[in-house]
Amino acid sequence: MSKEKQFVTEITPQGEDFSRWYIDVIKKAELMDYSPVRGCIVFRPEGFALWENIQSDLDRRFKETGHRNAYFPLFIPESFFQKEKEHVEGFNPELPWVTEAGGEKLEERLAIRPTSETIIGHMYSKWIQSYRDLPVLINQWANVVRWEKRTLPFLRTSEFLWQEGHTAHETEEEARQETMQMLNTYKEFAEEVLAIPVIVGQKTPSERFAGAVDTYSIEAMMKDGRAVQAGTSHYLGDKFAIAFDIKYLDRNNTLQYCHTTSWGVSTRLIGALIMVHGDDRGLALPPKIAPTQVVMIPIGPPKTREQVVGRVDELFAQLKKAGVRVKVDDRSDVSPGWKFNEYEMRGVPIRLELGPRDMENGQAVLVSRISGEKRIIQQDQLLEEVQRMLDEIHADMYNRALQFRSEHFYSVETLDEMKTLLEEKRGFSLAGWCGSDACEKQVKEETGATSRNIPFDPAEKKTKCLCCGEEAQHTVVFARAY
Amino acid sequence: MSKEKQFVTEITPQGEDFSRWYIDVIKKAELMDYSPVRGCIVFRPEGFALWENIQSDLDRRFKETGHRNAYFPLFIPESFFQKEKEHVEGFNPELPWVTEAGGEKLEERLAIRPTSETIIGHMYSKWIQSYRDLPVLINQWANVVRWEKRTLPFLRTSEFLWQEGHTAHETEEEARQETMQMLNTYKEFAEEVLAIPVIVGQKTPSERFAGAVDTYSIEAMMKDGRAVQAGTSHYLGDKFAIAFDIKYLDRNNTLQYCHTTSWGVSTRLIGALIMVHGDDRGLALPPKIAPTQVVMIPIGPPKTREQVVGRVDELFAQLKKAGVRVKVDDRSDVSPGWKFNEYEMRGVPIRLELGPRDMENGQAVLVSRISGEKRIIQQDQLLEEVQRMLDEIHADMYNRALQFRSEHFYSVETLDEMKTLLEEKRGFSLAGWCGSDACEKQVKEETGATSRNIPFDPAEKKTKCLCCGEEAQHTVVFARAY
Repeated sequence: MSKEKQFVTEITPQGEDFSRWYIDVIKKAELMDYSPVRGCIVFRPEGFALWENIQSDLDRRFKETGHRNAYFPLFIPESFFQKEKEHVEGFNPELPWVTEAGGEKLEERLAIRPTSETIIGHMYSKWIQSYRDLPVLINQWANVVRWEKRTLPFLRTSEFLWQEGHTAHETEEEARQETMQMLNTYKEFAEEVLAIPVIVGQKTPSERFAGAVDTYSIEAMMKDGRAVQAGTSHYLGDKFAIAFDIKYLDRNNTLQYCHTTSWGVSTRLIGALIMVHGDDRGLALPPKIAPTQVVMIPIGPPKTREQVVGRVDELFAQLKKAGVRVKVDDRSDVSPGWKFNEYEMRGVPIRLELGPRDMENGQAVLVSRISGEKRIIQQDQLLEEVQRMLDEIHADMYNRALQFRSEHFYSVETLDEMKTLLEEKRGFSLAGWCGSDACEKQVKEETGATSRNIPFDPAEKKTKCLCCGEEAQHTVVFARAY
Repeated sequence: MSKEKQFVTEITPQGEDFSRWYIDVIKKAELMDYSPVRGCIVFRPEGFALWENIQSDLDRRFKETGHRNAYFPLFIPESFFQKEKEHVEGFNPELPWVTEAGGEKLEERLAIRPTSETIIGHMYSKWIQSYRDLPVLINQWANVVRWEKRTLPFLRTSEFLWQEGHTAHETEEEARQETMQMLNTYKEFAEEVLAIPVIVGQKTPSERFAGAVDTYSIEAMMKDGRAVQAGTSHYLGDKFAIAFDIKYLDRNNTLQYCHTTSWGVSTRLIGALIMVHGDDRGLALPPKIAPTQVVMIPIGPPKTREQVVGRVDELFAQLKKAGVRVKVDDRSDVSPGWKFNEYEMRGVPIRLELGPRDMENGQAVLVSRISGEKRIIQQDQLLEEVQRMLDEIHADMYNRALQFRSEHFYSVETLDEMKTLLEEKRGFSLAGWCGSDACEKQVKEETGATSRNIPFDPAEKKTKCLCCGEEAQHTVVFARAY
């Protein structure tokens, strides 16, 4: 325990220093550790388990929509990047280069993939010949590297883990449908699994993926009012098809370029769910991805201990059999109170307490990590009660996040108004935008807030640009972002 | 179909050219494709699905034995390799180096991990302080790179996918138990899931993992008589603990070095199962990892088609609901006969045929990919019959592989005997060895065969060294290997 104990020492309160709170929590909960490689973290088992649960749920959704997984090389020849102008401009500054291998200097430098449109495009051009070969619906789970100047665990690391979907289609319409389908898959996943409400919309041209025709995103609000882009889906038009010669013979036997898409989410989702749900007691994990959903803690005097622990083990077996991710902590060298703090800090959704009196009454106590509500339940209804409470906790977490977001979502008319708001309060601003890069740039320079996206269904339609006062072309969500 | 059709063109017979057979099969079955990066392949969906099934079964076995997954950085600082002398000597020649990143030259070169003992050892030294922190039982699923001169899809590629387990323990005894437990896990997996019989034993010193005290392996025989090392488990002693300062306070409050292990299997298992089970008709996939276990093909004249297809879809739903990986091919633009060849080439274990007469009789026909046996079954017993046949096919595949191995396993007394055997026949040789590097080296030079391992239970104990004729210290399996 020597090491464990130190983890229940103080966590910096969110109100005092949110960034320090974040680092304190992820270190104390043993989600990650810094590595000796600049900007790269180690995903410790407690942190990686979150990613495994995210992966398995998303992977099921991808396969249900007809996608299959594949794996493409980590290395991308330098010449490949030159083929799509905007793409190379966007990614070149962030690329690590392999220049030597096997004791020899390489004739052509190899980039470590920052994303795989180029090498996958090259392969698709070999695999696709006829409309009969379409659509191609492939996803890849992989590590990617973007050499970042400023890094933050999970949210921005030089190496990170992600999935990247890459699809090729006959028509623009079909490709756009795919782009929207996957964007919606991300939205549903964020809400149904991570309990994170998201704003769904289109990126402004300046925030587009390098090489995309249109980029769409889901944006989430952290508890410090900043935004995290939680997932993106891109319609690439025929730009990569032209760059990599992805052609097919259509139904009239004429050669056409494919329309392609790409879409991805990454391990930054772990950072997002921590910053959305965590509190001054530590982590608060959404039940659907919590590595441990229920922790069972026997209580009471030593003389009753054996009997209580025996019953706890029986109940443990019941829950485990039913697929609940449950754990027993029957250590006798730490107090129940210490354990309560420990598992609250680690964000376990439900704590089950069982003591001598509960034994007599055939009862047990369930405690919610979120509301702190204590519920006395009958042991013979344990499974139903646990499942009900897990569902309630998920809904509770989602509603609290939604509540927080609406309380920190402002409708602004002018740049000054937005500045004042951002100085006094945390949050997102909804504002009109004339569509000019100049105005968008000025907002960024004067407030540090960037356009997050143009929401599909804004609370209201803005009519004037917050910057130049001209007629608004779009209603945009602006926020400082991670 | 245009592209599909070309896949049922001739496959080079194994007897004519085994290597060409292998490449023909994996290309035609769309398991892989060559990439523009030297020595790196693309795992196409049909090939990657095999890895996904291997992964999910092994991952369950690892977790059942108390291991958890984590993820460590892709990059390893050059200085880390210098810390374990044998390790650096073993891997240096194969390392790719990142020398530039983000537009700047790096102060210290970063290697792409060929294996992660060094960086994981570094982290363990931070995490482990007391015996209470032990054992540490972590596994990582990752891509690794070893710059290979000669490559062969799946069996030897510059980048490959694998799992690497890394554990730390209080005592040598406990660490050696872990080493053996994981070796045995690999043996059971190879036999129970891949239907591959393996020879379990210890590597000779010259074949040890760079930096290990003892290396153990499972070795499988391919249909050309060559060996594939299908998995290794290493007892690392305290060598990496000393190199990376992994110390703990023991129960008597004195500082001790940990005893560590590592163990791994890789995507070469895909190559092995193809070379063990495939035949001149193409792939033959073990039912437990076949992406498609049953392919359902409606047959009969067009006028009966709709009715037959309707019934096929009902049966499909039954099997799918029961968790059978099943697929329907009701395309009307290719003949049943063409489909039969296609799915035999792709190695689908069971073909289900349903025609008008079967409809009348409430029957269906199951055909085994391995034996070709046709079994007429009652539709109302479909699930039981399919599950029984899948089990029989697994046993059949295992027994055929075992039979082939015993027919190509020779007991030899002298080097000349072994030479003659290897010239006339394919296979493994069991021979005595005095234990000297010189003799082992001579065997390799004169026969091209290497010592695979010292089997735990050899068919017989050899008394004389095949090379020098001195007393044998060990009975060794020799073979040419991939």
